[in-house]
Amino acid sequence: MTAKSGTPKKQLMLFSGRAHPELAEEVAKVLNVRITPQAAYDFANGEIFVRFNESVRGTDAFVIESHTEPINQWVMEQLLMVDALKRASAKRITVIMPFYPYARQDKKHKGREPISARLIADIFKTAGADRIMTVDLHTAQIQGFFDGPVDHLFAQSILAGHIEATYGGSDITVVSPDSGRVRLAEKWASYLGDRPIAFIHKTRDPLKPNEAVANRVVGEVAGRLCVLVDDMIDTGGTIVKACDALLDAGASDVVIAATHGILSDPATERLANCKAREVIFTNTLPIPPEKRFPGMTVLSIAPMLARAIQEVFEDGSVTSMFDGNA
Amino acid sequence: MTAKSGTPKKQLMLFSGRAHPELAEEVAKVLNVRITPQAAYDFANGEIFVRFNESVRGTDAFVIESHTEPINQWVMEQLLMVDALKRASAKRITVIMPFYPYARQDKKHKGREPISARLIADIFKTAGADRIMTVDLHTAQIQGFFDGPVDHLFAQSILAGHIEATYGGSDITVVSPDSGRVRLAEKWASYLGDRPIAFIHKTRDPLKPNEAVANRVVGEVAGRLCVLVDDMIDTGGTIVKACDALLDAGASDVVIAATHGILSDPATERLANCKAREVIFTNTLPIPPEKRFPGMTVLSIAPMLARAIQEVFEDGSVTSMFDGNA
Amino acid sequence: MTAKSGTPKKQLMLFSGRAHPELAEEVAKVLNVRITPQAAYDFANGEIFVRFNESVRGTDAFVIESHTEPINQWVMEQLLMVDALKRASAKRITVIMPFYPYARQDKKHKGREPISARLIADIFKTAGADRIMTVDLHTAQIQGFFDGPVDHLFAQSILAGHIEATYGGSDITVVSPDSGRVRLAEKWASYLGDRPIAFIHKTRDPLKPNEAVANRVVGEVAGRLCVLVDDMIDTGGTIVKACDALLDAGASDVVIAATHGILSDPATERLANCKAREVIFTNTLPIPPEKRFPGMTVLSIAPMLARAIQEVFEDGSVTSMFDGNA
Amino acid sequence: MTAKSGTPKKQLMLFSGRAHPELAEEVAKVLNVRITPQAAYDFANGEIFVRFNESVRGTDAFVIESHTEPINQWVMEQLLMVDALKRASAKRITVIMPFYPYARQDKKHKGREPISARLIADIFKTAGADRIMTVDLHTAQIQGFFDGPVDHLFAQSILAGHIEATYGGSDITVVSPDSGRVRLAEKWASYLGDRPIAFIHKTRDPLKPNEAVANRVVGEVAGRLCVLVDDMIDTGGTIVKACDALLDAGASDVVIAATHGILSDPATERLANCKAREVIFTNTLPIPPEKRFPGMTVLSIAPMLARAIQEVFEDGSVTSMFDGNA
Amino acid sequence: MTAKSGTPKKQLMLFSGRAHPELAEEVAKVLNVRITPQAAYDFANGEIFVRFNESVRGTDAFVIESHTEPINQWVMEQLLMVDALKRASAKRITVIMPFYPYARQDKKHKGREPISARLIADIFKTAGADRIMTVDLHTAQIQGFFDGPVDHLFAQSILAGHIEATYGGSDITVVSPDSGRVRLAEKWASYLGDRPIAFIHKTRDPLKPNEAVANRVVGEVAGRLCVLVDDMIDTGGTIVKACDALLDAGASDVVIAATHGILSDPATERLANCKAREVIFTNTLPIPPEKRFPGMTVLSIAPMLARAIQEVFEDGSVTSMFDGNA
Amino acid sequence: MTAKSGTPKKQLMLFSGRAHPELAEEVAKVLNVRITPQAAYDFANGEIFVRFNESVRGTDAFVIESHTEPINQWVMEQLLMVDALKRASAKRITVIMPFYPYARQDKKHKGREPISARLIADIFKTAGADRIMTVDLHTAQIQGFFDGPVDHLFAQSILAGHIEATYGGSDITVVSPDSGRVRLAEKWASYLGDRPIAFIHKTRDPLKPNEAVANRVVGEVAGRLCVLVDDMIDTGGTIVKACDALLDAGASDVVIAATHGILSDPATERLANCKAREVIFTNTLPIPPEKRFPGMTVLSIAPMLARAIQEVFEDGSVTSMFDGNA
Repeated sequence: MTAKSGTPKKQLMLFSGRAHPELAEEVAKVLNVRITPQAAYDFANGEIFVRFNESVRGTDAFVIESHTEPINQWVMEQLLMVDALKRASAKRITVIMPFYPYARQDKKHKGREPISARLIADIFKTAGADRIMTVDLHTAQIQGFFDGPVDHLFAQSILAGHIEATYGGSDITVVSPDSGRVRLAEKWASYLGDRPIAFIHKTRDPLKPNEAVANRVVGEVAGRLCVLVDDMIDTGGTIVKACDALLDAGASDVVIAATHGILSDPATERLANCKAREVIFTNTLPIPPEKRFPGMTVLSIAPMLARAIQEVFEDGSVTSMFDGNA
Repeated sequence: MTAKSGTPKKQLMLFSGRAHPELAEEVAKVLNVRITPQAAYDFANGEIFVRFNESVRGTDAFVIESHTEPINQWVMEQLLMVDALKRASAKRITVIMPFYPYARQDKKHKGREPISARLIADIFKTAGADRIMTVDLHTAQIQGFFDGPVDHLFAQSILAGHIEATYGGSDITVVSPDSGRVRLAEKWASYLGDRPIAFIHKTRDPLKPNEAVANRVVGEVAGRLCVLVDDMIDTGGTIVKACDALLDAGASDVVIAATHGILSDPATERLANCKAREVIFTNTLPIPPEKRFPGMTVLSIAPMLARAIQEVFEDGSVTSMFDGNA
Repeated sequence: MTAKSGTPKKQLMLFSGRAHPELAEEVAKVLNVRITPQAAYDFANGEIFVRFNESVRGTDAFVIESHTEPINQWVMEQLLMVDALKRASAKRITVIMPFYPYARQDKKHKGREPISARLIADIFKTAGADRIMTVDLHTAQIQGFFDGPVDHLFAQSILAGHIEATYGGSDITVVSPDSGRVRLAEKWASYLGDRPIAFIHKTRDPLKPNEAVANRVVGEVAGRLCVLVDDMIDTGGTIVKACDALLDAGASDVVIAATHGILSDPATERLANCKAREVIFTNTLPIPPEKRFPGMTVLSIAPMLARAIQEVFEDGSVTSMFDGNA
Repeated sequence: MTAKSGTPKKQLMLFSGRAHPELAEEVAKVLNVRITPQAAYDFANGEIFVRFNESVRGTDAFVIESHTEPINQWVMEQLLMVDALKRASAKRITVIMPFYPYARQDKKHKGREPISARLIADIFKTAGADRIMTVDLHTAQIQGFFDGPVDHLFAQSILAGHIEATYGGSDITVVSPDSGRVRLAEKWASYLGDRPIAFIHKTRDPLKPNEAVANRVVGEVAGRLCVLVDDMIDTGGTIVKACDALLDAGASDVVIAATHGILSDPATERLANCKAREVIFTNTLPIPPEKRFPGMTVLSIAPMLARAIQEVFEDGSVTSMFDGNA
Repeated sequence: MTAKSGTPKKQLMLFSGRAHPELAEEVAKVLNVRITPQAAYDFANGEIFVRFNESVRGTDAFVIESHTEPINQWVMEQLLMVDALKRASAKRITVIMPFYPYARQDKKHKGREPISARLIADIFKTAGADRIMTVDLHTAQIQGFFDGPVDHLFAQSILAGHIEATYGGSDITVVSPDSGRVRLAEKWASYLGDRPIAFIHKTRDPLKPNEAVANRVVGEVAGRLCVLVDDMIDTGGTIVKACDALLDAGASDVVIAATHGILSDPATERLANCKAREVIFTNTLPIPPEKRFPGMTVLSIAPMLARAIQEVFEDGSVTSMFDGNA
Repeated sequence: MTAKSGTPKKQLMLFSGRAHPELAEEVAKVLNVRITPQAAYDFANGEIFVRFNESVRGTDAFVIESHTEPINQWVMEQLLMVDALKRASAKRITVIMPFYPYARQDKKHKGREPISARLIADIFKTAGADRIMTVDLHTAQIQGFFDGPVDHLFAQSILAGHIEATYGGSDITVVSPDSGRVRLAEKWASYLGDRPIAFIHKTRDPLKPNEAVANRVVGEVAGRLCVLVDDMIDTGGTIVKACDALLDAGASDVVIAATHGILSDPATERLANCKAREVIFTNTLPIPPEKRFPGMTVLSIAPMLARAIQEVFEDGSVTSMFDGNA
């Protein structure tokens, strides 16, 4: 007999970086798997070391890392995990980035800048990534930066579902905090039942030449519950000013919703002190207790990630999770 | 003597596809070069053949093609020209696409779609392109689709300059025809001296359930000269409806400006019959006499392309042409 | 439990471009599958859009397109389908080109030309093609242009089988219409039972200095049934002149056989009016009713394509379909 | 029904170059498979031709070649086998090089040299290799030259096991023949139960200025059984001089052990005449009868290769074969 | 001052493998350069080592190797030279292969074969080759195997020039030794002034069923001087049988001309004893004295190579050397 | 006139990351250039932003970064600088890493580990690096990890020169702190005039079963000045124990020399308190005042880097800086 035959099997294994183990654990629990045990630590000079404690040969590997601060460390850790998986004969490597790092640098704003979001896609490809799974990209074009399949999940459905359930009876206006995300507001408005939309127009005010920038509300907000939506909140400056501008313009109340709570200082302080009724995030990034405050709601994306992983593993459909929009 | 020494020289050569020779000729004239003579024709079954009549060895080649209808033919022609240049030892190949083909398909709008704009970047890279030069990309992220330098030129400065010169004294509101291009309107507004902005919000009208979509104007336009700006106008449906909506909302007058005049049927008819005072394009795409009408203004981008080519050839700065914004 | 196990399954899905749906339908019928439903249409400016209506995740995808006129459109459509499949996580993508586009430009005939057939291979690789399946390549070397497996099917067996069945009893000479395809004629001659071969030598006739080219028959054809064989017939000029030359040289009758009926104008007129007894093609390219004429025979390659797809899907052998010659 | 479903199967096939068929046969026997029949021969000018006699479509191919003299011929043969497998649709191609060719040129020793070991990795990748399996690399860093998984097997465990069994009761010192392989000696020393180590320091002897190089023994060897270890022995000059130096320094006896017996002339003569009690190799390279002598022991690596192939085929663990060290 | 400026210079350096130093020396002489001194030797086990003795940084490197027997050694040597040049910062590397190795395996003749000529192109690209320069490719399609410029030189003009000068006054028929190279004969016929052509048709002879193959002459040769042309002669079997068949068919005389004299045994004996009046080669491959015989003419391609190198170095035109045909 | 001619010029520009600006400044001073002004800062979440303030089009860019702690940040910063240079049309990009990051992870020590040093090479290649310049690699094989030229500089000549000048008259033994760097010690020994060498053998001591590891000195050190050499010192544990072992073994004095002073805690404390007479580093990594102590000597590599940059820019020879050893 020339050849030796066998029946292939397939195996899902979940790997977690050290940035946000709680999210990975939650995903593992939903999937009913255990996170693959590994050694991962930093050398004294910051170089990262990883080794997996079990054989990963032939496995369908899902590597989750939350790109929170110190973000470059976690980028490198995830790259090293991918390299180790490639060299250890994993069959397929899916890089899960609930928050895509460097997404804001998705173009040259001026000359002689990097396009960092493309670089991220390229170096993960180089390391051995076969697929990227991510949530609510800053711009959808980033999908095109990766030469391979990108499973783009929409956490905004989770957020908007919460808004609908909590405030659905109010007169809602969906508001974009700047001119660049009005399309996003439009999607929310449609999702919430064809609500009006508005946005904040940053402009120099010709009447007050000494003030650098004025926030002009464009759209109807007076007497309405304004839902301020964004993909991420970093230091919170823009969103809090937008909140103020809306209340100044007569809004009856403001609710803030964003997928990614980066919450760099002094975001927590600003948000805790602003007049929004509720501030809603998901846990794509870790939000430790010291960054939380009353009025903050954190919704979990773990069930969504777990379902997507399951669909990928079983050659099901991720698109169908979002009515064809993924 | 082991080695033989020499002094390198460099040479700029301009190549033109057959889609829009007038633009290439105009560029050549400004640069004071002649378009490199070539044989280019279609075989009976539509296969394209090209051959250059002069040696291109070691040259700094600039290949211009306007991606007008039939667009796939011109994409393939430009690819073949690049391949021929690569195999004939051109030193560097710059692909000039005044209108980037398939720019609108820059992401998956729903699942199981191509990202055609990335594919375009990749196949030109594969053919041998070292650089892309293009004008007013549909989204700036497309720069990141190409693995190499992209010289992104801004024709909107030409258009806005014309507006400023012609209507600068009026009470202008800059208007985006939909929610996705409000940022663009904001840039124009800033360029024109901190003008107010508005946009058209497409929504189902809860009061008229039988009508599919209503165009709701968001922002102040009553009594003002509305400058409706977009990057391209294809069949003209959206822009003409936006024009109507603005006039319905009390705008005193409307001027339409867009970089790329695709003008597929029935764009010319629609635009000629709409109530805009002036419709302004550049010649990134050919606009033949039968597509023109009174009230249309076509501004030439040839001087801008020529200057950029010159800067590239001489290792000057393209960024400096746009105050650091390229 | 660390890992989650599963049993892999595999799935064959067939995709069809819009160039020649009849052939794809015929293949689907033999395979007993349905062509995957999709949206595919042209934007007003000729840009093509495709979206698949069913999940293709993990599938073994076979994408068939017939590269007929307008050939560049179909090349681009097939590229976009491949890109969409890659990004939608198809497991393996086989590009089926019954007629390989740009096969005639498989080398630089003179300097500064593209090698278009290589470019085609490269851009499909770039888009995501894992394999090419094609029929009767213009030159077999084109297989080497693709960096991966090429399943090269031989439709000439179908054609020659028809000749054998119909004219096997006659005194046949197999004739190449020019000096470049004598090897092909030799293969036919061997297949038909060691028949003599001849070819047409194009030369300037020293006795008639004013005539550009004379067609000199090299080989014995007098009183014999000449089977003129070629891989493709485009405008038909060469083949019809060859037919005339053979009859002038005393051939008793002529039969023309070619795999690919490109049939650009005025091929149909020429062939219908020539003195060949029968003209035989396959349906690698669509031959619409208006291009048909009495005396034309069209043989279907669908069963051969279907069998090859089946072998690829089941890890069988394509080579064995052709006695080791594929 | 749109799709056609099936159950994947997998198949292990073993391929052997012509350099050392005995080893491949031994591996095949352990695996209980037959080496895939093939045609492989040299054209008159040395060009190699290969063709497989059975379908290899979808197979998990293992291609074994022993890189003995004439080494460039076998490198090319193995490359051609890989290319043929890739183009014939093998699913996965593992290149087995029991002795990695050009391993000694793993860096530039001086300027303007190739890094030949990296070139070897790259050209096998280019040809289509998915994985390399090799034994006792000259330096472990060579693993990093290949962009993909490298299964690095340790035959030194076989050799050291033999030493332990034969000489375990003696007072052993493990000796490196030069300064570059002291680490290797340390590993042996640990394996054999924390034995002392020594090495030979090549130096110009300041007391004998006319002699080019002196071999100075560093470490305690007097009255001890010295086990001289190396990864390969080529012409045997260094190892035999080391043996002499050890005996001069009072060693009671010397045993030589190396994985790869290159044994270029005059290695056999030198080793046969040296005073070592035993010289031990594996059969990674063929050692024909004329190169053998009394006192030489050749241990087979076939069982280890077979086990590793089996683990790779079944997605088992190669690392576990070596207590986590592979 | 931020930057430091300088004037680039360029330098041509010529490198030669060890296969055919006489040709390289002749080229160097015409170019008036010295072959760059290097160390190049074989290790005892056949591994090749190379190091250049002078700095090659920034140089325009031309690496010449004649791929004669043992051909795999010279392929590897040239690869290693290219790798060393790449790593030593040569600016551009041109690989000169007067005889392209493995050119005959330019397609799969049957299933499960390599396409060796493509593999050669790919591994040189991988090693770092920017360009290939070669002479009279077996098939012109091989140009398309390399992803970059190929300077394809035509030595047949040298050969045909010699024929014209020596036998121009005779009644010449140009003859292809088999059905696959009739196109080549046609080119010669045109070059020599529209001479008639013929070829040898290998067939089983129905009248002599016991003889395997008969050589049937197709075309007029009686009483004429037959010029038998081929690109290469390896063992000489085919060409000598063709010569016999022509004389049997009444040819008055035969002259044999081929670019590449591989001349594997027993080619010299066969050719020396055949009845051809003259046998003409170039020196793309070394023809040592023991392979020569009276009646053999060897023409040098060194001037052509030198001129092409010069054109490449100076960004001149290689195409112009052949009236647009390169 | 078809083409436009010009004379190329070239320009050296120096770029510096933020990790160790003093070294870059020193290099700039020697080169008599100014470091190119740039904006480089961290966003609140640690994402790095860079923009160059001057045009870099066509420049020969040298990007220096010292990979000190937090090392992943500096890796990413340098990657982003390279990406920005590539997209801004720099002609050639040389990445200068005086200390190559992750050099210690140059192989899999056990299974399922990354080969981080290869990953570093690959991601810089992906970002756009044309060349790497580095100093005293942990293992020379790392050169082979980069697909392109690596200029490997030897700072050990600087260190050894200092030793020679200061202690040349003593009875020196060169000592490797472990078994893996004995070759390095041998090189030093040769450089310092054929001195004896020794090394520390880490072993479990059979006589003291409770102690984990004993440091056994192998070689003669009694009464001699021991020069302990290594490529890097991180936490200093190994080197300080080696120092103690040498003094225990009777060494008269110890001097420690290493190229890279990583000096992670508690290295400074350990070294300051150890009994070595002098500890010598270079400034490949920043050694801030708080890490310095009496008895530490820091030698500058800036002149060597500057000279190498100059040679690269002017197509001179880096190899010649080290007598052919680079």
